[in-house]
Amino acid sequence: MGFHIGGVEIGSRFFLGTAGYPSPAVLQEAIAASGTGVVTVGLRRQLAGEGVAGDFYAMVRASGARLLPNTAGCRSAREAVALARMARELFDTHWIKLEVVGDEHTLQPDAFELVEAARTLAAEGFEVFPYCTDDLVACQRLLDAGCRVLMPWGAPIGSGQGLLNPWALATLRERLPDVPLVIDAGIGRPSDAAQALEMGFDAVLLNSAVAQAHDPVRMARAFRQAVEAGRLAWEAGIMARQSMAVPTTPVTGRPFLL
Amino acid sequence: MGFHIGGVEIGSRFFLGTAGYPSPAVLQEAIAASGTGVVTVGLRRQLAGEGVAGDFYAMVRASGARLLPNTAGCRSAREAVALARMARELFDTHWIKLEVVGDEHTLQPDAFELVEAARTLAAEGFEVFPYCTDDLVACQRLLDAGCRVLMPWGAPIGSGQGLLNPWALATLRERLPDVPLVIDAGIGRPSDAAQALEMGFDAVLLNSAVAQAHDPVRMARAFRQAVEAGRLAWEAGIMARQSMAVPTTPVTGRPFLL
Amino acid sequence: MGFHIGGVEIGSRFFLGTAGYPSPAVLQEAIAASGTGVVTVGLRRQLAGEGVAGDFYAMVRASGARLLPNTAGCRSAREAVALARMARELFDTHWIKLEVVGDEHTLQPDAFELVEAARTLAAEGFEVFPYCTDDLVACQRLLDAGCRVLMPWGAPIGSGQGLLNPWALATLRERLPDVPLVIDAGIGRPSDAAQALEMGFDAVLLNSAVAQAHDPVRMARAFRQAVEAGRLAWEAGIMARQSMAVPTTPVTGRPFLL
Amino acid sequence: MGFHIGGVEIGSRFFLGTAGYPSPAVLQEAIAASGTGVVTVGLRRQLAGEGVAGDFYAMVRASGARLLPNTAGCRSAREAVALARMARELFDTHWIKLEVVGDEHTLQPDAFELVEAARTLAAEGFEVFPYCTDDLVACQRLLDAGCRVLMPWGAPIGSGQGLLNPWALATLRERLPDVPLVIDAGIGRPSDAAQALEMGFDAVLLNSAVAQAHDPVRMARAFRQAVEAGRLAWEAGIMARQSMAVPTTPVTGRPFLL
Repeated sequence: MGFHIGGVEIGSRFFLGTAGYPSPAVLQEAIAASGTGVVTVGLRRQLAGEGVAGDFYAMVRASGARLLPNTAGCRSAREAVALARMARELFDTHWIKLEVVGDEHTLQPDAFELVEAARTLAAEGFEVFPYCTDDLVACQRLLDAGCRVLMPWGAPIGSGQGLLNPWALATLRERLPDVPLVIDAGIGRPSDAAQALEMGFDAVLLNSAVAQAHDPVRMARAFRQAVEAGRLAWEAGIMARQSMAVPTTPVTGRPFLL
Repeated sequence: MGFHIGGVEIGSRFFLGTAGYPSPAVLQEAIAASGTGVVTVGLRRQLAGEGVAGDFYAMVRASGARLLPNTAGCRSAREAVALARMARELFDTHWIKLEVVGDEHTLQPDAFELVEAARTLAAEGFEVFPYCTDDLVACQRLLDAGCRVLMPWGAPIGSGQGLLNPWALATLRERLPDVPLVIDAGIGRPSDAAQALEMGFDAVLLNSAVAQAHDPVRMARAFRQAVEAGRLAWEAGIMARQSMAVPTTPVTGRPFLL
Repeated sequence: MGFHIGGVEIGSRFFLGTAGYPSPAVLQEAIAASGTGVVTVGLRRQLAGEGVAGDFYAMVRASGARLLPNTAGCRSAREAVALARMARELFDTHWIKLEVVGDEHTLQPDAFELVEAARTLAAEGFEVFPYCTDDLVACQRLLDAGCRVLMPWGAPIGSGQGLLNPWALATLRERLPDVPLVIDAGIGRPSDAAQALEMGFDAVLLNSAVAQAHDPVRMARAFRQAVEAGRLAWEAGIMARQSMAVPTTPVTGRPFLL
Repeated sequence: MGFHIGGVEIGSRFFLGTAGYPSPAVLQEAIAASGTGVVTVGLRRQLAGEGVAGDFYAMVRASGARLLPNTAGCRSAREAVALARMARELFDTHWIKLEVVGDEHTLQPDAFELVEAARTLAAEGFEVFPYCTDDLVACQRLLDAGCRVLMPWGAPIGSGQGLLNPWALATLRERLPDVPLVIDAGIGRPSDAAQALEMGFDAVLLNSAVAQAHDPVRMARAFRQAVEAGRLAWEAGIMARQSMAVPTTPVTGRPFLL
């Protein structure tokens, strides 16, 4: 059931963020329960901690998941590029989740700075995972800049609003059939995650919906199941919606379609 | 994770219908993959079959699931009551899914006939599972008539439109907190099922979404996972939706909420 | 642009309720600004007032609008029938907006009591305007009981939520093409009213959206325009929605379709 | 009820496009019926016509509406700038609707090229009306580039889908309270236009919804009324939506809030 990004097979379609959990133990359990293969971590936050980074890194490594450092908190391409380079040294990975925030309030991606940073980082050999909007044109520019995966938002970070613009997302999926697409941000409940996979997205990345649940570990399991359900459904071929009803239990005749 | 209807524990929150599968073998596999504890079967259809009923019944029995005969195809309380009595004899169960259709085109429930039939059947000792609309007043009448479980529709049978009126369904759930409520009909994809469970509904019943999938067995598994995901999420406490974003990755400070 | 109910031509497609206005003067101005041809008035409220009824009645009469007394506050068919008979005496009209509330909290219609009351009142020569849900089967029973117009809700009274179940409403409109249908309750903003008319409904009835506006008179004008807009659009033939875009400004060629 | 763009008062909040009408006469009547103060015209199309431009221009002038030439069909900033300069000469106006299409299929705006072109044109004294997406960051860049009005899309050109992402549009309106904002493209029916105005947008621009109606002139009137309705409602103060109902007709007591 996996998929590939830059030649690397990703075993799980559920990427998990690591911010805002009640405790390190809960985070550790949530990672295990999620079955995730990729966890993100904010470098700025790690730099600010005193000695936490090492333990944290060790803990994530022990889970078997790949680490995806992010540039959360950056406001410009220049800042993000600098942070990405540090992340490569510190975490020994060329993977980077590229975040450049263009608005303090919604924390939404800045497509202009993203493209610039992506071009630089891709040229330096990074595998760039851009957190971007659902704008097709901006997405195409990111691909032109060297990205091999895209992470469009469903809704603003931490809002839990789900997929705000299904039309734009469906357009992305249809127009970029060969690009791995991960819905990142905005997912609030398992049904949102299932919906994304049913639409053909390759994976989801979320954080708040697990970290802010009353029981984060149980919620991690819930999302794991929902992601698998959505993917299975996509593979199984979903029935078409019909405006008016047709009977499913014919009143006479044989029960099978033979 | 089970729930009770009339003192009987139901092990799975996923009820499955048995109409319209490509073959008996596919149905059998889909039942197994679904993990369902309750399968519905149309009596009229069985009566019309030549010798099928016995085999079919044996197959369902072998799956370990409880049989829930239905009165699909009935147009009046009188007809439905007569069919329910026959079902009790034939299938040796006092459980009955009560369907009385009020419109040939949408196959929607007729609340008036339903209440009348439910009153009669409940008095005769049936455990009545009425397939009803999401109308709170009609639901209360069905409870007054002796029903101990309700099965409101999400959308018309076979339409796959999902939950057409979330407000009405949320009102039902809120106002009838102690009544087992099963969303029956209209569910098209696993995310619809997860949504129903996230809202606090006790189970879902569906048929077309599995039977009409390209791969019904795989779709049965998808729904099984989605139902579990939705229930786990409800138990885990879902984060509140927020209109505007808050950062989930603080740029400084400690990664945990300690 | 009018329509007929029981042989009477209704000049305006905007019916207005008279409860909860800041003052009698504002109500009077709002009625004038709305251009309404039908205003509803709660009999219970009038009975409770001391001497208000006469003035109120006179004021409405002066506006040229038809009076439609309602049975708001009734909980049973018996109560509603009694009140309707009193209304006929007091207001000298055989028109009655039939309300029977089935739930204290949502104030939603009780289809069972409605049908019973409608049958009695229609037999006594009333023109019954039932405030009902969007349930097709219940609506058909009301027609069988003698109603010649139906007033399905859009959403609960006073909620301003708009049209909660467009599917159910579109089904009503399609299946009952010759019955005057008035959306009553739940409309919160002019776009909701326009939407109802665009769908082919004959009129809307609202109260809170005008009475609770900061400037009720201006809001009455807004609704008047929106109702006219929705009706004109329905008559003009609305373009089909398309998932993907087509250019409206061809880059070459002639500007007209000749 | 007017608003200002760059010191010019705009008398009507309904901008109309001129492509795809059945005939010049219908277009002329539709312009009159719309009461529009601003009509757009595609320069490429005019250039391609043989002698049409002059008549067309004269006809629009006669309507009293301001002409807003557009750069429809351009794929790059360079192209758009060149066309804008020609438009200034031909139509004797420094107003330009700036369109740079980034995708052949959805005809969606290319934010990158738009910003570049806007910067150049604003520096040359144009009043630039950019047809843009609902992306807040891109909108802010356009303002930085010298735009004094923005025209975000509701949905793709010609799709008639209405406002696909109300969250994004509401965010724009809230964050840019002093910028004239015109919803351009995607509006399919008068209720969509009313909704935009109710949200506080200053105006709407549409074309297909009128040109493709069975009766464009009647539809132009419909939109005129809907735009006025939406604006009046915004001014009058719209009631808050409530999830659960409250009675609007108190069963006892006085009819007014005195």
